[in-house]
Amino acid sequence: MAQYGAALYRKFQVYQVFGANTNVGKTIFSTLFSRAASRNQGERSWYLKPVSTGPLDDADVRHIGRYAPGVQTQNFYQFENPVSPHLAAQVEVPNESLLEKTASQIHTNAQNGPGFMIVETAGGPHSPGPSGTSQADLYRPLRLPILLIADSHLGGISTSISAYESLKIRGYDIDGIALFKEDVYQNADYLQQYFHESKVPLLSVEQPPPAIKPSSADQAAMSTYYSSVSESPSVTSFMSTLTDRHLQRIDRIENMAASAYSRMWWPFAQHRELSPQSLNTIDSAYGDYFQTYQKPKARKQDGTESLLRPTVDGSASWWTQGLGHGNPDLMLSAAHAAGRYGHVMFASGVHEPAMELADRLISTVNNPRLNRVFFSDNGSTAMEVGLKMALKAACERYGFSPSKDQVDILGFKNSYHGDTIGSMDMSEPSVYNEKVPWYRGKGFWFDCPSVKMRQGKWVIEKPEEQRAGLGKPSTFGSLQDIYSAERDSSADAEFYKTYITSTLERLTQKEKRKFGALVLEPVILGAGGMVLADPLFQRVLVNVIRSSSHLFSASVDSKASSASVTTDPFDWAGLPIVADEVFTGLYRLGHPNACELLHFQPDISAHAKLLTGGLLPLSITAASESVYNAFLSDSKVDALLHGHSYTAHAVGCAVANTSLQQLADIDASGKWDAFKSDWSGSTSILGQLKTAFSDIAKSKPTLLKPDGTPQIELQVWSQWSQKFVEDLSNHTQRVESVWALGSVLAISLKDGSGKGGYTSNVAHGLREALYEGVDGWNIHSRVLGNVLYLMTSQVAQEQDVRRWEKRVRTALGV
Amino acid sequence: MAQYGAALYRKFQVYQVFGANTNVGKTIFSTLFSRAASRNQGERSWYLKPVSTGPLDDADVRHIGRYAPGVQTQNFYQFENPVSPHLAAQVEVPNESLLEKTASQIHTNAQNGPGFMIVETAGGPHSPGPSGTSQADLYRPLRLPILLIADSHLGGISTSISAYESLKIRGYDIDGIALFKEDVYQNADYLQQYFHESKVPLLSVEQPPPAIKPSSADQAAMSTYYSSVSESPSVTSFMSTLTDRHLQRIDRIENMAASAYSRMWWPFAQHRELSPQSLNTIDSAYGDYFQTYQKPKARKQDGTESLLRPTVDGSASWWTQGLGHGNPDLMLSAAHAAGRYGHVMFASGVHEPAMELADRLISTVNNPRLNRVFFSDNGSTAMEVGLKMALKAACERYGFSPSKDQVDILGFKNSYHGDTIGSMDMSEPSVYNEKVPWYRGKGFWFDCPSVKMRQGKWVIEKPEEQRAGLGKPSTFGSLQDIYSAERDSSADAEFYKTYITSTLERLTQKEKRKFGALVLEPVILGAGGMVLADPLFQRVLVNVIRSSSHLFSASVDSKASSASVTTDPFDWAGLPIVADEVFTGLYRLGHPNACELLHFQPDISAHAKLLTGGLLPLSITAASESVYNAFLSDSKVDALLHGHSYTAHAVGCAVANTSLQQLADIDASGKWDAFKSDWSGSTSILGQLKTAFSDIAKSKPTLLKPDGTPQIELQVWSQWSQKFVEDLSNHTQRVESVWALGSVLAISLKDGSGKGGYTSNVAHGLREALYEGVDGWNIHSRVLGNVLYLMTSQVAQEQDVRRWEKRVRTALGV
Repeated sequence: MAQYGAALYRKFQVYQVFGANTNVGKTIFSTLFSRAASRNQGERSWYLKPVSTGPLDDADVRHIGRYAPGVQTQNFYQFENPVSPHLAAQVEVPNESLLEKTASQIHTNAQNGPGFMIVETAGGPHSPGPSGTSQADLYRPLRLPILLIADSHLGGISTSISAYESLKIRGYDIDGIALFKEDVYQNADYLQQYFHESKVPLLSVEQPPPAIKPSSADQAAMSTYYSSVSESPSVTSFMSTLTDRHLQRIDRIENMAASAYSRMWWPFAQHRELSPQSLNTIDSAYGDYFQTYQKPKARKQDGTESLLRPTVDGSASWWTQGLGHGNPDLMLSAAHAAGRYGHVMFASGVHEPAMELADRLISTVNNPRLNRVFFSDNGSTAMEVGLKMALKAACERYGFSPSKDQVDILGFKNSYHGDTIGSMDMSEPSVYNEKVPWYRGKGFWFDCPSVKMRQGKWVIEKPEEQRAGLGKPSTFGSLQDIYSAERDSSADAEFYKTYITSTLERLTQKEKRKFGALVLEPVILGAGGMVLADPLFQRVLVNVIRSSSHLFSASVDSKASSASVTTDPFDWAGLPIVADEVFTGLYRLGHPNACELLHFQPDISAHAKLLTGGLLPLSITAASESVYNAFLSDSKVDALLHGHSYTAHAVGCAVANTSLQQLADIDASGKWDAFKSDWSGSTSILGQLKTAFSDIAKSKPTLLKPDGTPQIELQVWSQWSQKFVEDLSNHTQRVESVWALGSVLAISLKDGSGKGGYTSNVAHGLREALYEGVDGWNIHSRVLGNVLYLMTSQVAQEQDVRRWEKRVRTALGV
Repeated sequence: MAQYGAALYRKFQVYQVFGANTNVGKTIFSTLFSRAASRNQGERSWYLKPVSTGPLDDADVRHIGRYAPGVQTQNFYQFENPVSPHLAAQVEVPNESLLEKTASQIHTNAQNGPGFMIVETAGGPHSPGPSGTSQADLYRPLRLPILLIADSHLGGISTSISAYESLKIRGYDIDGIALFKEDVYQNADYLQQYFHESKVPLLSVEQPPPAIKPSSADQAAMSTYYSSVSESPSVTSFMSTLTDRHLQRIDRIENMAASAYSRMWWPFAQHRELSPQSLNTIDSAYGDYFQTYQKPKARKQDGTESLLRPTVDGSASWWTQGLGHGNPDLMLSAAHAAGRYGHVMFASGVHEPAMELADRLISTVNNPRLNRVFFSDNGSTAMEVGLKMALKAACERYGFSPSKDQVDILGFKNSYHGDTIGSMDMSEPSVYNEKVPWYRGKGFWFDCPSVKMRQGKWVIEKPEEQRAGLGKPSTFGSLQDIYSAERDSSADAEFYKTYITSTLERLTQKEKRKFGALVLEPVILGAGGMVLADPLFQRVLVNVIRSSSHLFSASVDSKASSASVTTDPFDWAGLPIVADEVFTGLYRLGHPNACELLHFQPDISAHAKLLTGGLLPLSITAASESVYNAFLSDSKVDALLHGHSYTAHAVGCAVANTSLQQLADIDASGKWDAFKSDWSGSTSILGQLKTAFSDIAKSKPTLLKPDGTPQIELQVWSQWSQKFVEDLSNHTQRVESVWALGSVLAISLKDGSGKGGYTSNVAHGLREALYEGVDGWNIHSRVLGNVLYLMTSQVAQEQDVRRWEKRVRTALGV
């Protein structure tokens, strides 16, 4: 999906004409509108029929040329067979090129304005274009305002409203509806009333004269018709309503930032640092692109440049976006569920979308420990639920008192699990959360060795404290090597084990602290600064905890040891392991879950963000039966007393089902092969299997899964190219280090000021350069201290990502 | 909206036939399907055309009668004029009666099954029925599975897909699509491929022979056509696919409870108390009704009773539902926003639905203190945001250290603000939350006098501690009197003031406790047991706090007094007042906000639930500029660092805009007048104004607003009738007390076991009796300890509510 600027010019109005059906008078109305528009002093009028079928003699452009002689007509494709363009097309017409031509023609015309332009489609909204794609979908990236020509025949009320709905639900604005008056069926009267509520202006005009012979008489009759109708008060008033709506839309978008500035309270923003000029005003979005308001100083002053420009959604809208903005399948799933249910009570009940999603999530995540599904609204609540699950399970087993004992969690420095107080308390104190009155960090947080590419080399850097143990950074030939289970037998593994064990012994035996859970973001510590964690460290930590029940029990060796003789193979051990997969899960890193990359299976797993493909808030905390069992008793007070009103709302569940299906389909389709092969010579499953089995032959126990099946190393890959990452990492003047994984790219910049981490401002310059843009498009991104990150959707295409890479290279001077 | 059972019988398949347009062959396909079905041994076949237009000779029932002679035909209305039924109708046909007839005919036929039934519509999905309502909307309460007859003409691809979408987005299941083969336009081929993804089976058959003369020859040709086509392999296979889908749907709904039981982890449920049999399986919903699965033991065993029955959504789906399930306007708003935006990044940005909603919420709530809008996902997060706002403002003004000082809140016993830890910590310890390891209540909680009707009298009962002060319960002539501002000069007011002041002095001066906010649910303490708070107590508490800055400042009289000379008339004083209007706000109690009933304006106000009319999670915390200013500084660490990924998601905002508009329209429309007049002799504004002005003439200062304008007493009213409430309250054998306000009814039951409050089980019996049902419908409700409450939507109609009241009377024996 290449980017297109949605055409919005103050002195140039462009509309797309759709018909409710064929033969409803699209071209006659186009002629009327074009004529009416060109009567306005000094205004020029254009008519574009991108694709036309049927004999040239009858072509719409000829009709316009004849009856609206001042209007410039344009046509890209004329196919003689009078059938749908997908059958008639004599040449291949990819959607991209049709869009490109149309967008560029609009732009050219706008340069020659002020003026008025009609882009007329063929057939109805869902009539296929030459490629076979429905026109309503095909032209959606341009999102031109629509003039819908309604159907005055018998049955036309229904076809008109349905056509309207097909356009409306795809995010189009329908600026006007027009149809012929007709006395028997009176569709115009009905539709006038029907659309009154939605405030869409409706124009009805008398029908053209019936065709007569000879053609000269016919032409004369038509000319008379056009003259009288195009100057009629109703047409004049309709046209001026269109102009009013056009100008109102421009006013709204021009003033929105100022209104918002005095009304909104934005998340994570020091408002003193904001100004109306610094705000991103979004008109609409499609695929990986927003259409954003382009501030006057960035535009030409003669009004010939579009007020909107395509802007790469470079943070994937805060890590949510996966299947593209304006995705029609997600929309249709949402609408169907809204129509079938609205939201229905889920407590002690069930409905189909929730049932399907619960099963689908479990099978997608594919962790045999997980069996139970708890719904909530977002990552932060999902993690609070996970916390409550884990702590209760630990309190029960180890005999801690929930109300009297201070039961902490084990976690990682630079972690982030959300902004509700309970989730904040899972992260270590920092300059930020210490300003929040009720924040009280409750845990011990390990400093995690981190992975990065620096000067063309993949390295693992250990934090100060651990460096004493094992000297200089380890370097690796590839990112793939870092994720290999073979590292389990490395010196690093041994060191980590010793380090972690002694730390835990100190905490529990010497300091007598009680712990109820390990809480971790697998693979990437996200909001805490985009730290790519050493997978080995996370894995060893989990393994040590699972074999250290004796350390966590209050009465050492009693309950803990009895628990270890459970018959449940998926019983939690040591501490319940809570994985925060909110950011990393569900294909963000190229795989259904991030823990898979780490070769361990958590007891509790939280999912949100990509769960709905990027459309709606919804989250799931999945848990093992052994955790769930801790809440069973004969008393209600032992239940998990947590719930939100919109628990398992049907619309979110339906969207999530479609979303998980689409992600799985993409995964299976080979659409990511180009990205994968960029990161590896061989992507074939056969090759991987061979390696795995040859390793088994060599009896490497680490390459077996717990259930004895061969452990297939997952391929580590990214939408961002290896060469790009390498080149950035070699730009030592500005770049400290860089990494890419899945759709995420993180660039750590060097900060001359000496301020590191989250309080650094060094990445803001790069962010501003990318947002400034050039050639009519720009990139919106977010920074975390000295780190600028970029994130594509899961449907981003290679050519687009490569173009964004080029933009980053230019901005950094690489 | 009366209730209808969605027809679902194991041995009886009923379909509604819609056409993509007129003249696409609906009746021919209906004939084919009916014939094919009646060939099955022992199966009967019915054809119903509820409304038909055109000459009787051409009537569809005659066509069926002729070519499918074994099929029983039925027709309710035949209008001779061959135009749309809304023009042709010669008698008034209300939607209700058409639905009623159709539903009852289906039921009758099902009794005589096994069999197959077609209900054929007229024209396309949106062709109007006799009342003028689009058929797709009109028949939605029945939600019959659809057979869509697609259009094989030129343009038919588009009309077919659009018709499909109009049905799909209204929540229908389209079980099959059928159309004629046609070689030029090849619509069947295209549509086959198009619907392949969505797995809708598509049937294409050859076209019927062209009409010939004489009619006997024509009939012979048609008979031959029907004989050959109805027995063709493609029709046979299509029919058996329909049966498969039918049986699969039944299997899914029959097994869903068992699947859910082993997979789901429900909120607020002790799973030991649940069983698959106790779960509420919801097939779909419309208006105030679910369609729920009727367990076999509740049904006749011969398969002639529907597996689904209408169930009143008696908790308004956990207090969310306001505008009816399956509301097409909310659906269309959601779909449009999904198509236009998906979700787009809101941090430091803005889009139209969010901008409109921010302004609309502020003007709806109509509290001049509120100016800033912060978005989050649900009531719990909205309250955590409100808490962070308030505490920070207080810490700044009073010089408290967020990380060192313990800053508590003032609140009410029995309060509830959500289940995230921060929101839990705003409520007092109880047997429930003390089981949650990280819960630590942080506040002082007042015991609030409560309002109830007991034995036909409205009384205010004071808690033990306050009873000493003022003896026996106060009684009132009406609920309206309790909300009168005239009570400000009562002895109760004086007592409350003294009591509250001395309590605050003790807490702050003697115990040296620090407070940062008053947090309250105005009017009703909801989840804590549906306590109707004495409005006077809540108001006096706010007034005392606002005039007691000296008590809350750490360095008494210094900063606090300097704060009191602010020039901002809406500066907070004493403590920021945080209103949790999540449950009570946005017309739940008959008015845009509940604080209005209390005659005070909070500094911070949290809204969720009804904000989206009951469709999607979304919440807003609105705050005053004076609270907002506390976060302004030159440092990012002073900002409100709270945010959720889907902040201000476009779909939710768009739905909320439509929802708030609809609620305001209902309020203005007089649709609630019948309810209002039940609670008052006079509902006229004039009458209220008269009273207000005559009071002003009498110089009652309490009847002036702070800005000097007359304080108009809001009318206190309920969807539940006064007589019903009174009669329940007189049922002293089982009912302890009762109250109703807005759409909420709460019945406190007497508990013989001596266990009161939340741990009581006494209300479960009543809940089960209501759920058991009779006459084909039942009521789903929720209990809180010994309280059973019922809640209607804001669009519930009087006759429905009165029918539910009757059911409650029967269940209680009143």
